[in-house]
Amino acid sequence: MELVAVFTRRDPKTVKILNNNVPVYSIDEVLIFKEKIDVLILCGGSATDLPKQTPDFAEHFTVIDSFDTHAKIPEHFAKVDSAAKKSGNIAVISCGWDPGMFSLNRLYASAILPDGKDYTFWGKGVSQGHSDAIRRIEGVIDAKQYTIPVQKTLESVRRGETKDFSTREKHLRECFVVAADDADKAKIEQEIKTMPNYFADYDTIVHFISLEELKRDHSGIPHGGFVIRSGQTGWEKENKHIIEYSLKLDSNPEFTAGVIVAAARAAFRMKQNGETGCKTMFDIPPKYLSPLSDEELLKIL
Amino acid sequence: MELVAVFTRRDPKTVKILNNNVPVYSIDEVLIFKEKIDVLILCGGSATDLPKQTPDFAEHFTVIDSFDTHAKIPEHFAKVDSAAKKSGNIAVISCGWDPGMFSLNRLYASAILPDGKDYTFWGKGVSQGHSDAIRRIEGVIDAKQYTIPVQKTLESVRRGETKDFSTREKHLRECFVVAADDADKAKIEQEIKTMPNYFADYDTIVHFISLEELKRDHSGIPHGGFVIRSGQTGWEKENKHIIEYSLKLDSNPEFTAGVIVAAARAAFRMKQNGETGCKTMFDIPPKYLSPLSDEELLKIL
Repeated sequence: MELVAVFTRRDPKTVKILNNNVPVYSIDEVLIFKEKIDVLILCGGSATDLPKQTPDFAEHFTVIDSFDTHAKIPEHFAKVDSAAKKSGNIAVISCGWDPGMFSLNRLYASAILPDGKDYTFWGKGVSQGHSDAIRRIEGVIDAKQYTIPVQKTLESVRRGETKDFSTREKHLRECFVVAADDADKAKIEQEIKTMPNYFADYDTIVHFISLEELKRDHSGIPHGGFVIRSGQTGWEKENKHIIEYSLKLDSNPEFTAGVIVAAARAAFRMKQNGETGCKTMFDIPPKYLSPLSDEELLKIL
Repeated sequence: MELVAVFTRRDPKTVKILNNNVPVYSIDEVLIFKEKIDVLILCGGSATDLPKQTPDFAEHFTVIDSFDTHAKIPEHFAKVDSAAKKSGNIAVISCGWDPGMFSLNRLYASAILPDGKDYTFWGKGVSQGHSDAIRRIEGVIDAKQYTIPVQKTLESVRRGETKDFSTREKHLRECFVVAADDADKAKIEQEIKTMPNYFADYDTIVHFISLEELKRDHSGIPHGGFVIRSGQTGWEKENKHIIEYSLKLDSNPEFTAGVIVAAARAAFRMKQNGETGCKTMFDIPPKYLSPLSDEELLKIL
């Protein structure tokens, strides 16, 4: 696998990348590379970039995206599918861990244990959306928000408890906030804790720290989470089974890149097989993701 | 999905099954059902049954087996593949959790985190092979052996430790033994603990209990385990990632049946698509395992 080039909407001269051997071009030049690139990895955002970029580029390239607006995946899939089928390309959408590996684990677990219930816990990890929401409050200079599973609830799901848990029972939110010197901290804390959708339904912990502390202790973007299926089998449903998939990631974007690169390998292989259209992790025969040959997979794994 | 019939090598009149609506036939009659059965699930053992049965039946039916002699999977695959291709059928082999779901998780995790290391822990669960080995010792009436992951080692792998652990560091073995009244218990314990391959390389705990206690407290066949990938990413490998898949199963055979039934659904679909030959979980597009439609999968999962 070779990184051929990076394409940018900015002036390419202003874009520095770590790998000196890889050229940076303007996105306007991408069509020149039609025969030189097997797979184009789209790194845009889900809000406005990918809904347009993925179908557009699928008309010329085999593409991968990490579109993650869960509710809009069916709509995105339909648009991308029609573009990719028209051009005879493959487009793999929504690669990453949720959607992506978590979705895949929900599928496998529910197919194996049809009589059961799924639980997803996210964290401990940084939520960009919640951190942004805090930064928009008056008097806040910077902030980082961690989503944290409630350990007690996680443990009870692991023991096979299958009740419905409230939002508050499943996750708590911990905020590290840098406030301006003259800001009213009590008011900021109150505004955070009562913010509808973002914080009001959760137990929220607010810490005020210095900008130095924020940079020193909270500059990473770790994340992770748990997908747990609790199911039962047996003539009288007497046997319980727990399937758990969990991730603990120092870098959310780097792990997502790992999933995307594996999907790129699979997309190339599906195209070689003569397949076309939009795909998700649900459609990909797992072996296509691996650099190992069929023989090695059978022998080693 | 419908259970059409059960076929046996015994006299069918002597075989009682829980479901009264399902007939039991002699295996000699199975070919009569060629047009009535979409998938034949083979429930034989890996030592002598499946190496012959799977290729034989694949010449007439789409079949599933749970062949679990890891080292012989490539050889079994080749034989079954040739039989299934000849007849235009699909044969899915080695369905279950290890091989099966554990293999699949090793594949996904290593494709996503190519720079990393896999660890598998089994248990806590009953090992039939080790229980049998104890039963063969003179003076032993019955026995049950549990394989148990060493918690300290499991925790250190979860924290990202990537050293090579010895056999003894990874698992311990706990044995519940019923001895004859006149048996020399000290000698039995010594024989167990020093048994090559089975126990000598492990820390082994031996309890002597009564037959009543064995039946009351150890009649289940629970099992489970952990597949953990510890990987790293980043320009200077500065970020660690842990992917963990774990199972906690009250009934090893019932969970295995869950995997097999999902694979049967997939096999039928692959055959409908015109595919033939031997397959494993590595070849199956995940969506084929689920009763949900493509649209439902995208919407719900």
